[in-house]
Amino acid sequence: MKILVTGATGFIGKHLVKALKEKHEIHVLVRHPSDVANFDYAFCFDNNISTLHEYLKKSQIEGIVHLASLVLVSHKDSDIKNLIESNIFLGTAILEAAQNTSVRWFLNTGTFWQHYEPDTQDYHPVNLYAASKQAFIDMAKYYVEVSGIKFVTLKICDTFGPDDTRSKIFTLWRKIAKSGEALSMSKGEQFIDILYIDDVVSGFIHLIDLLNLNEELKPDYALYADERYTLKELADLYGNVTGTQLNIQWGGRAYRSREVMEPWKAGNRLPGWRVKVSIRDGILKSSLY
Amino acid sequence: MKILVTGATGFIGKHLVKALKEKHEIHVLVRHPSDVANFDYAFCFDNNISTLHEYLKKSQIEGIVHLASLVLVSHKDSDIKNLIESNIFLGTAILEAAQNTSVRWFLNTGTFWQHYEPDTQDYHPVNLYAASKQAFIDMAKYYVEVSGIKFVTLKICDTFGPDDTRSKIFTLWRKIAKSGEALSMSKGEQFIDILYIDDVVSGFIHLIDLLNLNEELKPDYALYADERYTLKELADLYGNVTGTQLNIQWGGRAYRSREVMEPWKAGNRLPGWRVKVSIRDGILKSSLY
Repeated sequence: MKILVTGATGFIGKHLVKALKEKHEIHVLVRHPSDVANFDYAFCFDNNISTLHEYLKKSQIEGIVHLASLVLVSHKDSDIKNLIESNIFLGTAILEAAQNTSVRWFLNTGTFWQHYEPDTQDYHPVNLYAASKQAFIDMAKYYVEVSGIKFVTLKICDTFGPDDTRSKIFTLWRKIAKSGEALSMSKGEQFIDILYIDDVVSGFIHLIDLLNLNEELKPDYALYADERYTLKELADLYGNVTGTQLNIQWGGRAYRSREVMEPWKAGNRLPGWRVKVSIRDGILKSSLY
Repeated sequence: MKILVTGATGFIGKHLVKALKEKHEIHVLVRHPSDVANFDYAFCFDNNISTLHEYLKKSQIEGIVHLASLVLVSHKDSDIKNLIESNIFLGTAILEAAQNTSVRWFLNTGTFWQHYEPDTQDYHPVNLYAASKQAFIDMAKYYVEVSGIKFVTLKICDTFGPDDTRSKIFTLWRKIAKSGEALSMSKGEQFIDILYIDDVVSGFIHLIDLLNLNEELKPDYALYADERYTLKELADLYGNVTGTQLNIQWGGRAYRSREVMEPWKAGNRLPGWRVKVSIRDGILKSSLY
C-alpha cells in the first residue's frame, strides 16, 4: 500500500514511519523544505491544495495517517492563530486535496484531552489544543459525507519511549536524576495513562489493517494503558527501575488549572489491540536512565 | 447595556444594530479601518487579542453578538484559509479576549445548514461553511468550560428584507422581473424556510433579553418560518404579490450537490418568539418589485 503520513518528524511519527516502511510505501507530508531530504518520498506542503491533490493522484496514495499537530498544554493568545492553522487548516486542506483521488481512508489522531470528564464519551476539552482537535473532526465530517473517504480518529493517551525530545515527565526525571537537582511538582495524586511507543505504533498499524480490510468501524477508538499509576507512584517506579534517586518536592507547586486527575476511560478500546510493554519494561527499553 | 456586535455591516447586522441602539449602547467590531467612521463606537480588530481585551474592559461590554461570517454555499480550495480565519479564528480570538472582562454572554449565529438531515438535532453539514460554524462551537466550548461566559447559538434559516445586497433569490427575481430576461432554475421542488428580517431581528433581541435575565438556556435555538413553500410556489407568490411576470425555466439546470430539499425542522424553537411578518407582507415591505 501507499500511505501518506503527516507529522513524520515528531516523536510518534518517527517510530511509526520506521515500522510502516517494512510493509508499505511511505510518503510523508512535511512543512519545511529542509525535511524533504530525510525521507524516501516527501511532499513539502506550502498551502497549495491543488499541488497536493496532484501529488496524491500521481503517487496513488490509498491512505493518510494524520499525526501532525501543534500540541499545547496551555496557550497564550498569540498561539491561537498557529493552533488553528496547524490543527484545523492543515487537515482540512489535506481532505480537500484527497477528494477524487485514490485515497480511501484517513486516520486522524485525537487526544484523551478531548475528554476532561473521564466517564463519558461527550466532548469536554481540557485545553484549547484539545478543542482544536475536536473542531477538525467537525470539518472532516463534511468530507466524510460528500466524498466517501473513510475517516476514523484514534485518541491516544500520554506516550513515552526512546528518542523523545518532547519535554515530558520521564525526560525531566532523567535530567534531575543525573544532576541531583531538586524539582518542585504538584502533590502528584493525578493518575497518569501512559503507553510505551511500541504499543502506540502497534495501535496505529492495527487500525490501518482494519481500514484496509474495509471493516465496519466506529468514528473513533482509544488507546489505553492497562496499568494506571499516580504521578507519585510513577516517580517511585522510575526511581526503582532505574536505581536512581529523584529529589522531588511534592506539593511544591499547585496543580495546574484543569489538571486531569483521572484520565478518560469511556473511549472505545481498539478491538484486537493489546498492550505488550509494561511501564517498567518501557522505562528500561527507553534508556531513560 | 453595553453590547458588542460583529458583522454589523452585513445584512442582518445593519438591521440588528439599528434596533438594538434604541435600548442599548452598541459597539461594533469591524475588520476594515474604513468602517470605523460609520458607527458611534467601533473597534477595528487587527488580530491583536490583547488590544481587544483592553477595549472590552474599558468599554465595560456585557454581551457579544457574533454575526460576522464568511458565507459560502460552496467553496473552492482557495477559500478554505479565509473560511477558517473568518468563521473559526475570529470568534475564538474574541472569546479569548473576553475572558476576565465584564462580558457575561456571547450570542453566536449558527445556520440551518449545520443540519442536512431535517429530522435530527445531529450535526450533518450541508457544506464546508456549515462545518466551520460547527467547528467554532467546539472551540467555544473550551471557553464555556473555563470562563463562565454564557454561550448560546441561534441557528437561522434563510432571510430576506430591504437593503439586501446579498445575491439572494428575491433579488434575482426582482432583476429578471424588471428586465424580462429568462432564468434557468432547478425543478424548484425544494422547500424554502425563509424569514423576514424584522422577525430575525426580534429573535436576536428576544434571546438577548433571555440572556440578560439570566434564564436557564439550551446550547442552541432555531428561528423557523411558520409557512414553508417550495421554490416554485415562492416564485408564484412573488409574481402574485408584486404583479410581475417571472420568466423562469424550471428544470433548466440540475439541483446542486447536497441541495437542501427539506430544511431542518428538529431545532429548539426559541421560546416566547413568534413570526409576525408573512412572506407575502415581507415581499411588500421589502420593496422587492
